[in-house]
Order: sequence, then C-alpha cells, then structure tokens
Amino acid sequence: MNCRLITLLTDFGARDAFVGIMKGVILGINPEVTLVDLSHKVPPQDVVAGALLLRSAVAFFPPGTIHVAVVDPGVGSARRALLIETPRAFFIGPDNGLLSLAVLAEEVVRITHLTETKHFLTPCSDTFHGRDVFAPVAAHLSLGVAPEQFGPTVTTMERLRLPSVEGEGIRLVGRVIYIDHFGNLITNVTAADLRPFSRENLLVSIDGVQIRGVATSYASVAVGAPVALIDSWGMLEIVVRNGSAAQRFGIQLEHPVHLIPT
Amino acid sequence: MNCRLITLLTDFGARDAFVGIMKGVILGINPEVTLVDLSHKVPPQDVVAGALLLRSAVAFFPPGTIHVAVVDPGVGSARRALLIETPRAFFIGPDNGLLSLAVLAEEVVRITHLTETKHFLTPCSDTFHGRDVFAPVAAHLSLGVAPEQFGPTVTTMERLRLPSVEGEGIRLVGRVIYIDHFGNLITNVTAADLRPFSRENLLVSIDGVQIRGVATSYASVAVGAPVALIDSWGMLEIVVRNGSAAQRFGIQLEHPVHLIPT
Amino acid sequence: MNCRLITLLTDFGARDAFVGIMKGVILGINPEVTLVDLSHKVPPQDVVAGALLLRSAVAFFPPGTIHVAVVDPGVGSARRALLIETPRAFFIGPDNGLLSLAVLAEEVVRITHLTETKHFLTPCSDTFHGRDVFAPVAAHLSLGVAPEQFGPTVTTMERLRLPSVEGEGIRLVGRVIYIDHFGNLITNVTAADLRPFSRENLLVSIDGVQIRGVATSYASVAVGAPVALIDSWGMLEIVVRNGSAAQRFGIQLEHPVHLIPT
Repeated sequence: MNCRLITLLTDFGARDAFVGIMKGVILGINPEVTLVDLSHKVPPQDVVAGALLLRSAVAFFPPGTIHVAVVDPGVGSARRALLIETPRAFFIGPDNGLLSLAVLAEEVVRITHLTETKHFLTPCSDTFHGRDVFAPVAAHLSLGVAPEQFGPTVTTMERLRLPSVEGEGIRLVGRVIYIDHFGNLITNVTAADLRPFSRENLLVSIDGVQIRGVATSYASVAVGAPVALIDSWGMLEIVVRNGSAAQRFGIQLEHPVHLIPT
Repeated sequence: MNCRLITLLTDFGARDAFVGIMKGVILGINPEVTLVDLSHKVPPQDVVAGALLLRSAVAFFPPGTIHVAVVDPGVGSARRALLIETPRAFFIGPDNGLLSLAVLAEEVVRITHLTETKHFLTPCSDTFHGRDVFAPVAAHLSLGVAPEQFGPTVTTMERLRLPSVEGEGIRLVGRVIYIDHFGNLITNVTAADLRPFSRENLLVSIDGVQIRGVATSYASVAVGAPVALIDSWGMLEIVVRNGSAAQRFGIQLEHPVHLIPT
Repeated sequence: MNCRLITLLTDFGARDAFVGIMKGVILGINPEVTLVDLSHKVPPQDVVAGALLLRSAVAFFPPGTIHVAVVDPGVGSARRALLIETPRAFFIGPDNGLLSLAVLAEEVVRITHLTETKHFLTPCSDTFHGRDVFAPVAAHLSLGVAPEQFGPTVTTMERLRLPSVEGEGIRLVGRVIYIDHFGNLITNVTAADLRPFSRENLLVSIDGVQIRGVATSYASVAVGAPVALIDSWGMLEIVVRNGSAAQRFGIQLEHPVHLIPT
C-alpha cells in the first residue's frame, strides 16, 4: 500500500506558520513524502465543517493515503488522539468527531489510541498537537511503523451526527449544512433521499424561493438564476449561477430546505 | 520534455477541499508529479483575471510544464474542454478564453478537444470538471499519453481581447486591467507601447494624480509616494510605495490612465 | 547535509501568481527540490511579523533546509541581498532584519552578499527580487553551489530589536508583538523571563483583564474564558479559549501586558 501521500486539513489559517511547521516536522522524519493541503481555512474550532470537508475529499485519494486533520478545540484536555485504519486510508487526529464522517463505521479496521510518546516530538506541548503528535505520527506511519506501535487498540470513537432529513407529510425537510467558497448552499439531502421522487417534478423551496426540478449542472439555468442540483459531494445543493446563493437569499447554516413532490 | 510539473490555477478559493481533491486525483494517477499552485483566489468566474495571472507565470516555468486552469462559469454547458500544446508548455482548461492570453496564436502546435472519456473520472459530473476532466487529463498527459489520444484536433479556441491602448492626440490612454494583492494598479500599457516616448518626460495621469516619469523600481520614490514603472509583468504599473494605490486613489478595474509626453 | 528542502515566506498573498512564479523558477533550476510554504500572508511590508514567523518555524525543519524570505519594501534600493549560513540552515532574503530573529548572532557561519549575477535570472528586475534573485540563488544553492560562489563574505547584517521586557518595581511589563490567526495575543515575554516567579501566583493583567496564573494548555479553562500560557513559540500568550482574545479585548500590537507576582 502506498503510504507516501499525506494530506493536511486544519483550522490554522494561512497567515501563521503553523501548517508549514507541521510539514517541516513530517519532512524531517520522512523526506520522501508528498504533502497535499485539503484546507487550512476550516472556520476556527468548527469540527463539523472540517469533518464535512474531509469526507468530501477522501474518495479521490489513492489507497493508503494518510489524512491528518486538526480542528482541535480540546487540545491539552483529556480528549484522545487517534489513528484510524480503514481498507482505503489512514486517518489521524483528535477524537472529537472530526474524522467520523469520512470513516464509515462498517469500514473501521482498527482504531489506535495514540499514546506511545516515542513517536511524538520531545518536548510535547499541550497547545500544538498538530506539530507535536499528529505530524510525527503520520510521518512514522508513512515510514512503515505499524499502527499498533502507536498505542493500544480501542473500540470506540466520537461520532458526529448530521441533522437528518425529516419527512413532513409528503414533503422532505433538509438543512443547509455547509456553504462553500462560491456561496453555494450544500444540504444534508443526498441523492439517495431523492430516489423515491421524480427529480423533474420536485419543488425545492428555501426561504420563499421555489425552484422546480433538480438539475445536473449549473449551466442548466441562465446566469443569475437559482438552480438545485446534486453536486460533486453527492448532496442536494442550491446555487445561483455565477453568483452567491448565500448572499442572494441571506441564508445561513441550518436553514431548512423543503422538497415537495408535485 | 519534462512533463512532471503541473501547475494549478482556479477560482476555487482556499476554504473548501476542491483544490486538494484535484491533487488527489492527479497523484492517484501519477504519484511522481510535482504540483505548483499558481493561484486559487481568482475572483469567482473572473476569466480575465485568471487569464492575466496565467500569462504572468508561464515564462518562468521549465519547458514541458502542464498548466491546468479552471475558471469555468460554463461548466456543464456546451463549452469545450481543451488541451493546447505550444513549443514550451501544455495548457488544459475550458475553452472560454482563460488560456488564451498565455497561449500566443503563432505558437499553437495543436489544440485538442477533450472528448475521450476513458481519460476522465467515472462517473464524470457536470459540476466539477476540474476534478473529473482536467485533473485526470493532466495526469495522464504527464504519464506520456499523446495529446491526440484525448480527442480530435481542432483549429479554433476562444480568445480574450484586452482593452487596447488608445491614442488621443499626442497622448495614450490605457486602462487598469488588474489590481494585485498590494493594491498596485496594473495597466494594459506595455513596455513596447512606451518605446516612442522618453520615459523620463512622460506624464502619467490617473484620476487627477500626476506622476512624472516612468521609473524602474518602487524604491525610486519616498515611502507613501506614487510611482509609475514597468513591472514584473512587463506592464505599466502605478504604485504607492509601501502602500495601496487602489485604496489611496479609490481606483477600480477599467479606470483610464493617461500618458502625456512633455 | 540535505539541501533539497526550500521554504518560502513572503508578503505576496495568495491571489496573485508571485509565489507560484518563484516556485517555477526554482523547479526549473532544480526539479528535485521539495518546497514548503511557511506563510505568504505576512502583512504587506511588515518585516517584524515576517521575522517572528520565520523564527517560529526554523527549529522544526531538518538540517540543511534553505529558508527563503521576501518581505522587501526596499527592493530596488541599495539594501543588500544576503545568504546566511548557520550550522543548521541557510537563510536567503533582503538585509532588512527579516532574517535576523531566526539567525542567532552566535551561530552565524557566514554571511554572503549576493552580487554574483550569473546566479540571478536575466534580465533581473528592480521590482521582483523574489523571482529574479532569491529564488534562483536558493535553487543553485540546493544543487550544491558553495555559498562563497554567490558573492563576497561580509561581516554585518541588519538586526531587528524586539521591544524588551521591562521591570517596573516588582512587576514586569511586556508587549503584544504578534496576533495570530485565532486572535491569540503573543507577547515578547519568554519562558526564561518567568523563571524568577511562581507561575501559579503570577497575575497577568492586560487592559484591565486580570488572569491568575500561567497555564500550560488552552483546555485548562472553560470555553470563552481567558487564559495565559507559554505557547508553542515559547512565549507568553493570552488566549480566549475557542475565541479571539484580540477581538474580545480590542487589543492591538504593542499593547502592554503587566505581570505581577502575588
């Protein structure tokens, strides 16, 4: 299995050198590794946003990729540090749900509680585990250290629960769970949720705006018009073509979206 | 020709994982590739800004570099996806003019219309061709797949036209075409446009501010003073030393700049 | 010594292609190099912030790393371009103090004034030495060109002086010298400055807010509460847990912090 690819996802931002420092630690241990940034602009301490972004990405990386994620408001507390092995990838980060949307329950091969300090930096701070714990563990793992060398195998991990799609009579009610860079509104409604319905005849209603049908591309409507589609995440997304749906409609996270068969 | 270097330029921003996902796709196909980000902060859907940035960069990359650019408001429409070969580099992206400022007309070796779906991801969405079309095509090209394997050769591409420098009596009138991170005002006036004039005696006038002479460095004036110079793009640029000319003068794109020989 | 790792720190921002262009120049000269971004969001022309970020990072990179830093308000003036060799690393950038906090005076092995134009790009502009001087010098150095080949050895460099911690009776008075992405307030007070005191009994006072004791982690207080701790830079830092101390207290750079033994 190719373990030379490490991805990084954090809420560290791009202004300070925190991310670069993690890379220095990793490359100091394994100079042969290839590093890919998933995002460092997760809103500070927003574990849900980080978990959604990580989930959106993992299917597109080759087998054996090591994903390091650090959105870690509990750093220095008793929250555990984990290494999770699945058939496809490794996940390293705090046990606060951040990894849980990317890791399907049925696919967990092993969860390791990271306690073996010989694989950490010395001294190990209580403020920057990205540098002192997660980066060096990822680098040692990429060198072939076996997961069980990093600490005891455990059986549980924190799991996030996204709001579920609810039924109200014949309609479904979803929620906006993420707003992307373009202001597109990503909901918790999946392609599977829409299977019982005729996509062409579904009315998508958000904040008084009604969109008829679920399209397959942004380009199916005129510039400036709203469109609902199944997006690259496999989720129902509401878009203003070449504009920002979030700004146009003044929509924030958690806003309900109604799906009405007609 | 070295085809192991791939650059990426998009309007995807740094918050979501779109860029990281493209890299995952590329490295999954060719793990030996080196990736360089040109910019992911092209203003959303701003094809002209993306085209200018791409043009500013290509001369500084080694021969055989593969440049992937995705500012793609027409994704999912009938707009074509292209691979353009020049003596120096390859360009991959949508046929909306984005590649056209970097690719000089006289240097086009071949334009390939990307239609060969076996080099795309499966399934291929209508919303994220960066991931599903442009990234895998770039990776396969870097592995040595010949350009003609990606689809039919075509003879045309969309070309952007920058506003041209106009003459008004003895004066030239240019336009601000890009404002950079520092607030420097980059115009459409090239070093060649200035050749008929004495640089020292040229009066550069923008919004009532008059700058005498065209300098060669920011440091030729005091901190806080305005200066006009031929910049690293080879264009006439108006700068406030160690400040933001855009903010100081309240200038936006398209603003005219008058050049008056004295 | 491993010289294949080059870091970049600039105030160029992420919107334009300046950083990508530097990477193109480097990889064109040495395609085997690994590049790491430390930060490109140093506030424009803020040499002190750049110097602090560089200092925070260098200890975490492997021996032989080449650090290129470009915050260069004097580009095109008579300010010198330098290559500094220490037992651990190489530093390349303008002689304006930017490198001086990372380079301890006692550790300088050699300072080279970069004058040998054969290692620069041709033509070499007066506006973009990151591209034309520092990037190619770093790349040639990584290929094994000896430091003395780049110009004459000199004996001095500009050194920044951080505000010093002052004593006022029994109390110490420090200053906020950096505010990070999370709004954490980093001061000029080091762990060494605190050695004479009992950390538990120290009262940390900033703008009327009094914090008792110096903790070791953010998690030692409740969410939303302020805490003072020695941070990952080894400096006294004032934090609002999972919030922004800068916003909460309306604090800016240079703000005093009083340390009062009780």
